[in-house]
Amino acid sequence: MKSAQYVGNRSIDIGDSQSIAPGPGEARLEVAYCGICGTDIHIFHGAMDQRVQMPQIIGHEVSATVAEVGPDVSDVQVGQRVAVRPLKFGQPASFDKGHAHVGKNLKFIGIDMPGGMQSSWTVPAYTLHALPDSLSMQHGAMIEPAAVACHDVRLGEVQSGETCVVIGGGPIGLLIALVAMDKGAKVILSEVNESRLALAKSLGMEAVNPMQQDLVAEVSKLTDGGMADCVFEVSGSAPGVEVMTELPNVRGRIVMVAIHPQPKPVNLFKFFWSEIRMIGARLYEEQDFDEAIRLADADKLHLDKLITEVVPIEKTQQTFEAIDANPDGIKYLIQCNA
Amino acid sequence: MKSAQYVGNRSIDIGDSQSIAPGPGEARLEVAYCGICGTDIHIFHGAMDQRVQMPQIIGHEVSATVAEVGPDVSDVQVGQRVAVRPLKFGQPASFDKGHAHVGKNLKFIGIDMPGGMQSSWTVPAYTLHALPDSLSMQHGAMIEPAAVACHDVRLGEVQSGETCVVIGGGPIGLLIALVAMDKGAKVILSEVNESRLALAKSLGMEAVNPMQQDLVAEVSKLTDGGMADCVFEVSGSAPGVEVMTELPNVRGRIVMVAIHPQPKPVNLFKFFWSEIRMIGARLYEEQDFDEAIRLADADKLHLDKLITEVVPIEKTQQTFEAIDANPDGIKYLIQCNA
Repeated sequence: MKSAQYVGNRSIDIGDSQSIAPGPGEARLEVAYCGICGTDIHIFHGAMDQRVQMPQIIGHEVSATVAEVGPDVSDVQVGQRVAVRPLKFGQPASFDKGHAHVGKNLKFIGIDMPGGMQSSWTVPAYTLHALPDSLSMQHGAMIEPAAVACHDVRLGEVQSGETCVVIGGGPIGLLIALVAMDKGAKVILSEVNESRLALAKSLGMEAVNPMQQDLVAEVSKLTDGGMADCVFEVSGSAPGVEVMTELPNVRGRIVMVAIHPQPKPVNLFKFFWSEIRMIGARLYEEQDFDEAIRLADADKLHLDKLITEVVPIEKTQQTFEAIDANPDGIKYLIQCNA
Repeated sequence: MKSAQYVGNRSIDIGDSQSIAPGPGEARLEVAYCGICGTDIHIFHGAMDQRVQMPQIIGHEVSATVAEVGPDVSDVQVGQRVAVRPLKFGQPASFDKGHAHVGKNLKFIGIDMPGGMQSSWTVPAYTLHALPDSLSMQHGAMIEPAAVACHDVRLGEVQSGETCVVIGGGPIGLLIALVAMDKGAKVILSEVNESRLALAKSLGMEAVNPMQQDLVAEVSKLTDGGMADCVFEVSGSAPGVEVMTELPNVRGRIVMVAIHPQPKPVNLFKFFWSEIRMIGARLYEEQDFDEAIRLADADKLHLDKLITEVVPIEKTQQTFEAIDANPDGIKYLIQCNA
């Protein structure tokens, strides 16, 4: 019964995991795996110290088995294998327009309240999505990032036959590319890391290193001048923002996936000139989890190729340090019940 | 038979207007009025000297009577009163996706080829929209800018009951506000000129001077914290771009109407956080002219209040200079056949 707690100063302590009896509408989970997200890395680096209350059990990419259910919980059964949609909804505000996942009173479980990097975790039962028996628990821990990708592709309205450019080939960028390919789109991935580029090519995408090739010219070449119908900015970089407006064709879309803490110069003229659009995308809604599970179960997401390493919870500190030292890595999973 | 020709160096000469016999698919017009657009002012200032071939007859906001039609023109009759949609379509490119008004081979009549500030003007017959008898020729010259506004509001998908903020209260900003009000939206106009603010209030809009009041706080107050469903950036200013992302609510839209020649810092985090969207809008399509004519004819656009002055073509130079000297002015019309 262990937990990984962020205590500040690039340090994660291993503590106890309390077994908290589920209240009404809650379920207690026995966590199998918890993936490490880019957000967890930001927390580790201290970039979110103003938001995170220390010590904080972090982690929100979870597969688990239901161990106990609280009163009034009828649609979740003990023993059920689940993924967790780590969003706690507060009182809905009318101006949230029904989009509680970006609503004013949302709490993100694993940042604003204790997360899933622990053996025993009690959460609202409405956060749970059943996993099919055919899906492994390791793949189940990838459902959360896959749901992000499903949400991004859905908001980008990607259609069969379209061309997508994904700027940034980390876990989310690769998953977006794979989901877009499943929609029937042709995908060109832009990434500066050669190992990730090789992985992208092995997954059937076109892959361009913008440090070595002119991305705009390459996209033009690969599309016979047609350019991109939908661009995903996942890099969070200034060059990514600079190039994103050069890639769409008339009425093309840009999906803003990355977090850009500071304003960056954007070519607004291109929005006017070609009537392009930019769509902000954050997290996911219920249907995105459903689709992620469906795609993962149909082996459309090649999750085995995206999992770099699986480590026991005792090695969480070393693993965060290893991620910083290994730009080739994709997804690391913490095993929470060994 | 006169024309107003831009000859460079902030100078407009009065020359002859050639009566050019219409070729196949063309019509020759006797121009009644031609409005002066912000783009014409940019041309006058020399800002578009790289694009405009001098001497150039400018002007593209035209009401006219058909004087002659070329061979093969059957849907336009001599004597018909018309507005002109000043777009000459080239060979459509597949990647234009059917949106020829922003297509690669578009020529804008009045910038890329001779415009309507002349007595006799020969244009493709497909550019013509019949004006109802009940619409005056002066109001007919306002159809082109009104069609811009109809296009912007259409692309912004403004719905009845929504709140819109229009940043910038020039002719296009005011027309956008009026079209949005016709859709049943509540409109808040942001403008720094007191005379324009008074006009906006007289037209039934809320009006805020962002130099004197905090626009974000005012919008919050006027909407009980609900903020804006759709924001139109029409100011072309850096403060406009800075504030535009602070105004939308969850999944709110920003329509980018203004021309921003240089990249400007944009708060991309807000796009991510509240899943807001930005929609580039340029010119108009056929249906926007149809709607503009319908709204003008139903007196929804209060065009009399927007026309500052009507001047004979001989005074074009003085009128451009007067516009520069009078920030209170809205729309000036050139009378092309006196």
